[in-house]
Amino acid sequence: MAKDKKMVTAITSMDEDFAQWYTDICKKAELVEYTSVKGCMVIRPYGYAIWENIQRILDGMFKATGHENVCMPMFIPESLLEKEKDHVEGFAPEVAWVTHGGNDKLEERLCVRPTSETLFCEHYANIVHSYRDLPKLYNQWVSVVRWEKTTRPFLRSREFLWQEGHTIHATAEEAIEETERMLQVYKTFCEESLAMPVITGRKTESDKFAGAVATYAIEALMHDGKALQAGTSHYFGDGFAKAFDIEYTDKDNKRVFPHQTSWGVTTRLIGAVIMTHGDNNGLVLPPAVAPIQTVIVPVAQHKEGVLEKASELRDRLAAAGLRVKLDDSENSPGWKFAEYEMKGVPVRVEIGPRDIEDNQCVIVTRHDSEKTVVSLDKLEEAVQEALKRVHDGMYAKALENQQKRTYECTSIDEIKDTLAKNGDGFIMAMWCGDEACEDSVKEQTGVGSRCIPTLQKNLSDKCVCCGKPAKHMVCWGNAY
Amino acid sequence: MAKDKKMVTAITSMDEDFAQWYTDICKKAELVEYTSVKGCMVIRPYGYAIWENIQRILDGMFKATGHENVCMPMFIPESLLEKEKDHVEGFAPEVAWVTHGGNDKLEERLCVRPTSETLFCEHYANIVHSYRDLPKLYNQWVSVVRWEKTTRPFLRSREFLWQEGHTIHATAEEAIEETERMLQVYKTFCEESLAMPVITGRKTESDKFAGAVATYAIEALMHDGKALQAGTSHYFGDGFAKAFDIEYTDKDNKRVFPHQTSWGVTTRLIGAVIMTHGDNNGLVLPPAVAPIQTVIVPVAQHKEGVLEKASELRDRLAAAGLRVKLDDSENSPGWKFAEYEMKGVPVRVEIGPRDIEDNQCVIVTRHDSEKTVVSLDKLEEAVQEALKRVHDGMYAKALENQQKRTYECTSIDEIKDTLAKNGDGFIMAMWCGDEACEDSVKEQTGVGSRCIPTLQKNLSDKCVCCGKPAKHMVCWGNAY
Repeated sequence: MAKDKKMVTAITSMDEDFAQWYTDICKKAELVEYTSVKGCMVIRPYGYAIWENIQRILDGMFKATGHENVCMPMFIPESLLEKEKDHVEGFAPEVAWVTHGGNDKLEERLCVRPTSETLFCEHYANIVHSYRDLPKLYNQWVSVVRWEKTTRPFLRSREFLWQEGHTIHATAEEAIEETERMLQVYKTFCEESLAMPVITGRKTESDKFAGAVATYAIEALMHDGKALQAGTSHYFGDGFAKAFDIEYTDKDNKRVFPHQTSWGVTTRLIGAVIMTHGDNNGLVLPPAVAPIQTVIVPVAQHKEGVLEKASELRDRLAAAGLRVKLDDSENSPGWKFAEYEMKGVPVRVEIGPRDIEDNQCVIVTRHDSEKTVVSLDKLEEAVQEALKRVHDGMYAKALENQQKRTYECTSIDEIKDTLAKNGDGFIMAMWCGDEACEDSVKEQTGVGSRCIPTLQKNLSDKCVCCGKPAKHMVCWGNAY
Repeated sequence: MAKDKKMVTAITSMDEDFAQWYTDICKKAELVEYTSVKGCMVIRPYGYAIWENIQRILDGMFKATGHENVCMPMFIPESLLEKEKDHVEGFAPEVAWVTHGGNDKLEERLCVRPTSETLFCEHYANIVHSYRDLPKLYNQWVSVVRWEKTTRPFLRSREFLWQEGHTIHATAEEAIEETERMLQVYKTFCEESLAMPVITGRKTESDKFAGAVATYAIEALMHDGKALQAGTSHYFGDGFAKAFDIEYTDKDNKRVFPHQTSWGVTTRLIGAVIMTHGDNNGLVLPPAVAPIQTVIVPVAQHKEGVLEKASELRDRLAAAGLRVKLDDSENSPGWKFAEYEMKGVPVRVEIGPRDIEDNQCVIVTRHDSEKTVVSLDKLEEAVQEALKRVHDGMYAKALENQQKRTYECTSIDEIKDTLAKNGDGFIMAMWCGDEACEDSVKEQTGVGSRCIPTLQKNLSDKCVCCGKPAKHMVCWGNAY
C-alpha cells in the first residue's frame, strides 16, 4: 500500500469543546486560512465553492422574484453616511476609514461600506422620478467591512461576503410585502438547500437595524443549542426617502415619498451549516451546496480494470449532472474515507475488483454512515436517491434537535431551571413589550430576545418578567 | 397610440465626437450612473448583466483549465505590500489607505488592494511545502482600487471589477506555459464571445507589470483606431517566491523556489465592446454576452390575439434557452425599436395581426438592420441562426476595421504620414530593443509601443528609429 501523503488528523470532539471543534473543522476541511490582516481570512477553494453554490441558488431565487443585480462603489463619503441619523449612529463606530489616496490626503474621508443603504438611496434619488419608475428591485453580491473587535471564521469577521437587496416601492404595502417575501425566500432556501430549519420572526425595537421601521430575521439553532441569526429583512418606511430627498410623481400628479426595504445573508450561512450538521468526523454538507456531491474511492486500485471502471462511473455520474470526484491518488482507501468524511461529502461510492465482478458498488451516506450495495446498472438513480436521502435525513435530524431544544417557560425561574438542566436552546416565553423587561430577562437568565416568532402561541396572559399583560411570545436564546 | 413614457433621445454622432458618443451610450443605454464618490460609478442592471455573462463564460473556461476560485481579504498591510521592491514602487503611489477602524487609529496602515499578488504570496507561503502541493491554480472575482486622477466609465475608474488569476508552479516551464495558456483563453473569449479580434504579444520592458519577468497582453483596436489593452498575463519567475519565502521540497528532497504567474481582465472589456461594435444608434452587443438576446415587439398590440401570440413566441424562445424579453408596455413600436437598438439587442422579432394571419414574423438583426420574414413554425431555428449571423457579422466587421487600420511602416516619416493621412491605428514597425528608441518613436510620432506581437513579420532589418539591427516587430498605437 502506498504511503499516505498526509495524515487525516483527528479533530477536537464537539462535546468536549464545541468552539475548538468548529475552528478545527474550518482549518482541517480547508475552508479558510488566517492572514496577516487581523480579523480577515482567506476563503480557500473548498470553502469558496460552498459559497458559489449558495450564490447560484439564491441568485436564481432572487431573479425568479423579479430582482436585478447591480454594483455600487465600495466607498461612502462621510457626508453621505451621515444623512440618515439613526443609520450613521449605528454604523459609524465600526467602519474602516480611507483618508489618503496615494500620497494625498482626501478632502473628505471615505468609509469602506459596512452596508449600502446610503449609496442605493443616492442612486434612487437620481433615477426615480415617476410612479412608472417603481418599483426598483435591486441586489448586489459584494463584501462589506465592519471593524469588529473579536472575530471567528464565517461567524464574525472584519470583512465578509454577502448579498444586499435594496428595493424601493410606491406604497408601504408593497414594501412590506417585499420584506416578507424575501424573508420567506431565505427560509425556503435554508430548508430546501441547507437542510436547516429556521424560525422566522420580527426583532424587538432594541434589536432593529439602524434606520429601519421593522427588522425581520430567520433564526437557526446550532448543535450546541445556541441561536444564530442567519438572515435579515428590513422595512424602512419612507425614512430614508425623506433623508435622501427621494420623491416621485404619482398617478394623480402629486409628489410623494416611496417606501424601501433591504435584506441580506452572508458567508455566516457557511458557519451555520457547519454548526447545524457537523459531527466528530468533520463537516456534513447538504447535497445542494456540497462542492463534491459524490466521491468515488477505488479499492485495490492497482488491480487491473479498477481505475478504468472507476473513471467510467465518474463519467456516468458527471453526465447525470452531479458534482463528482474520483480520487485516484496513491493514498490508501482508509485515508480517503476519512478525508472525504472530514470534508462532508454527502455520498461515497466504493468500487473494487470483487464489486466489478459482481457488477455492483457500495454507496455510503455521510450523515448516517449507512452502506448500500447497488447494481452498477442503476448507479445514477441510486446515487440521486441517496443524495435525496441525505438531505431529508439531515433536515430531520436538525429539526429534531431544534424541537428537542425548544422550551416553553412561564416564569423567570423556569427559564433558569431549563437552562441549568438542558443547556442552551430556544426559550419561548411571553413578553409585555417593555424594553425594561427585555433587559431584565437577559440580566436574570443570560438569554436575550432573538425574535418575536411569526408563529405565535399564547403560553400565558402575563409577561414572564413583570406579570403585566403580555403582548407577544418571544423567542429567547444565547446567540452567536 | 399611447403616449411614449420617455423619448429615446439621440446620441452624439461617433464621427463628430467619439468620446462624447461613448459617454452618451454609457448613460442612455443605462449601463452606468455617476455617484458622489469621485471616480467611482454605479453599474446599473443592464451593464451588470453584461458583466455577469462575461463572468459566467470566463469562469467556465477557467474551471475547464483546472482553476479554482478563492477569496482574499480586500486589505493589504503596508509591510506586506512592501515585501517585493518593484511591486510596491509600481503600486504605492496609487493606492487608497485605510488609517482608522471606527474611532481608533490603526497601528499599521492598510491599503485597499490594487491587485493581490502579495496576499496570494503570503497564503502560498502558508500552504505550499512539498512538490505534492503544486501547482495551485487560483482565481478570484473581486473589485480593486487604484487612485486614478482622470476617470472614464469602464475604461479607467478608481474602483473596478475584475478577475485575478494567481498560480504557482514547480518549474519555470510550467509557469510560462500557464502564462501563455491564459493569454490564449482571453483571446479565444474575446473572439468567440465578444466578437472582438485581438492581437497577442509581449510588453516591452518599460511597460511590464510591477514585479513581473514578462508581461503578455491582448490588444484590441477600437472603432476610432485607438488601441485598448483588454487583458494581461504575467510571468513572475521566482522573484515573488524569494521575496515572500515560498519554498518547497522537490522530489529529490531539495528546497527550491516555485514559479508564479498572474493574469486578469476587467470591466474594461465592456468599454471595449462598446467601442468595437457600437454605432450611431447605440450599443451593438455580441449575442453571447447580451442580457437580452432577442426582444419581441408586438405591432398593434391592442388588437385581439397579438399579445397572446407574442407571449407564446416569448415562451417558445425562452424554452429554447434564449434570453428573451417581450416588451408589452404602452410605448409605440417605433419607440421600442429605437430603445432596443440603443441597448444593442442583437435580434428583434416583430409580430402584428397581419403576421399572425400569415403564420409569420419579421426578424431584424441589429448590426446590419436586415429584415427577414420567417415562418412561425421555424421561429427557434430562425432566431438561433440570426444570432449566429449577428456574431459572425460583428466579428467580420471588427476584423475588417482592424485590418484596414493596421499599417506597416519602415521609417519615422512613414509613421507620421500614415497617422496624418489615416488617423489612429496599429502601426507595425521594427525595433532594435533599445528603450531610448522606444521613447523616441513615441516622442516623434505620438504612438507608444503596445506590444511585441506573437505573430512576427520581418518588415526590415533595421530599427525604425536608429537604423541599427532590428530585434522585433513592434505594434505601436495611441492607447486608451
